[in-house]
Amino acid sequence: MKTTIDLVSAALREKDRFLILTHRRPDGDTIGSAVALCLGLRAAGKRAYLAENEDLTPRLLPFAEHYLVPASFQPETVVAVDIADTALLCGSAAHLAERIDIAIDHHPSNKDYAAMTYVEPKAAATGEIIWRLFSGWEMEKEFYQALYVAVATDTGCFKFSNTTPLSHLIAAECITQGIDFHAINKEFFTKKTKARFQIERMLFDSMQFAADGKVVGTYLTRAVIDGVGADNDDMENLATLTMQIENVMCGIVLTENKQGGSFKASVRTHAPLDASRICAVFGGGGHARAAGCTLEGDGESCCRRLMEAAEEQLAHV
Amino acid sequence: MKTTIDLVSAALREKDRFLILTHRRPDGDTIGSAVALCLGLRAAGKRAYLAENEDLTPRLLPFAEHYLVPASFQPETVVAVDIADTALLCGSAAHLAERIDIAIDHHPSNKDYAAMTYVEPKAAATGEIIWRLFSGWEMEKEFYQALYVAVATDTGCFKFSNTTPLSHLIAAECITQGIDFHAINKEFFTKKTKARFQIERMLFDSMQFAADGKVVGTYLTRAVIDGVGADNDDMENLATLTMQIENVMCGIVLTENKQGGSFKASVRTHAPLDASRICAVFGGGGHARAAGCTLEGDGESCCRRLMEAAEEQLAHV
Repeated sequence: MKTTIDLVSAALREKDRFLILTHRRPDGDTIGSAVALCLGLRAAGKRAYLAENEDLTPRLLPFAEHYLVPASFQPETVVAVDIADTALLCGSAAHLAERIDIAIDHHPSNKDYAAMTYVEPKAAATGEIIWRLFSGWEMEKEFYQALYVAVATDTGCFKFSNTTPLSHLIAAECITQGIDFHAINKEFFTKKTKARFQIERMLFDSMQFAADGKVVGTYLTRAVIDGVGADNDDMENLATLTMQIENVMCGIVLTENKQGGSFKASVRTHAPLDASRICAVFGGGGHARAAGCTLEGDGESCCRRLMEAAEEQLAHV
Repeated sequence: MKTTIDLVSAALREKDRFLILTHRRPDGDTIGSAVALCLGLRAAGKRAYLAENEDLTPRLLPFAEHYLVPASFQPETVVAVDIADTALLCGSAAHLAERIDIAIDHHPSNKDYAAMTYVEPKAAATGEIIWRLFSGWEMEKEFYQALYVAVATDTGCFKFSNTTPLSHLIAAECITQGIDFHAINKEFFTKKTKARFQIERMLFDSMQFAADGKVVGTYLTRAVIDGVGADNDDMENLATLTMQIENVMCGIVLTENKQGGSFKASVRTHAPLDASRICAVFGGGGHARAAGCTLEGDGESCCRRLMEAAEEQLAHV
């Protein structure tokens, strides 16, 4: 049931033995918010741990590993952070879907699955809500580090339109507290694995332009992806890269599925072009600015068909 | 002569008819700081203008153009912002080198050429000093927009190690004041011209790795640069891109000079490798992390010689 931040705050102070859940394919916000909440609760004299998350990447693991729950721990209170829907729980936490006591989230699509839910859709990150819960407390450096990770990653290092004044105020305080924000920025925003570098190179090389440069499309075959040893981290946000190019209104990236013979397409658009309409032509869907679909065939023909559908939509806006 | 921010502040309040100088090949900090200072002085009832700067790029021009000095203006007080040395004045302002009344800067290398100089080396941007000069004033939106440009560009959108708590506090206030920070971020940190995109593509394509991936080098011929119509903006910070790749300790980018037959090299390193030592082999120099030199010959051989010099240095660290 939806409630206020004050009632959530009161519940956190009243209860004990917290198990904190993060979402599958975790990002900096779910992990950073969970760690900060865990440390905040411990500072309040509570016992608190993060639930196991089998999807933790090498990049996020160092932030979370010291707070993971021991096998012997019997939780009294289950808290979900940054999780819009119990369908987004990782496999090892799925059995807890029905007994989540408190959900703290910033996704407007939050399904209100918990006994107590606080959602702040205007928050750039769930980390901003955790910050407010412990505002005025004196905390250890790891708390500030975790919140910096949460806020910086969900705002694209303060670049995205969702960035709020509070995002920056939190960063100012975290830097004042002496965290090594530059190391975090390098890890999350600058460093490229060799495989990622190769994937970007091939993406750029195979890029095709249509509609006077407004539509750009490219595909990566399984042979290419496996050939450079790219993992899921390496394949993230490729379509976003295509949208940086001047005048591009629609960026399409297709990646061949593991079994071969079909391609998963990521489509990004600038307003007023609607990505979900382009993907709907192939039975897919999503949001206005970001959508996806699956196409059967070889990369060249899948890419051409999708680019044609984008040109078709473009002619109508 | 070096002085305090309070004495600079008093001088600004006492004098009138300000002409504000920006440095050649201007960046967001010199232009943003100059515009903000101009608006601050006007809010204090003074007349103030920016001096012409013939190097203004299409990206910076919209921020500066409304404040450029009319021909009839007779300045009483000349202020230099973000200018370390009078050698960095643009051609049209070079005749003012001997009559600069006030210099406001954050470069530790400031040559103290002005009658009154205030340097704050720990400031991430000169914009932070301008901010402090008008702290507590109610200003129009263009003031906050200019300061956001100054601070965001000099910190790489809050990513670089020079970012301070004040950088973030300024950003928080600017967003609160309703500036379109996302449009600024897109313009300065996301958008790529088609020519830049092509240059990056060719850079990636021609990249060579040595020393187990620790040294990476590449070159761009004049035919390639002119072929895609790349301008100076498009050619900026290419060597920095090579440094993003995991494990790279030294990134080298050579660009053929306009007359052909020789290459300008940009060398970037991670500590403890010293870029200036590598460039010294070829009569160049610079800083420990960023240096440059010029080599005669074709691209392939220039690149190979410089990469070998880097490998040689690498063997000694």
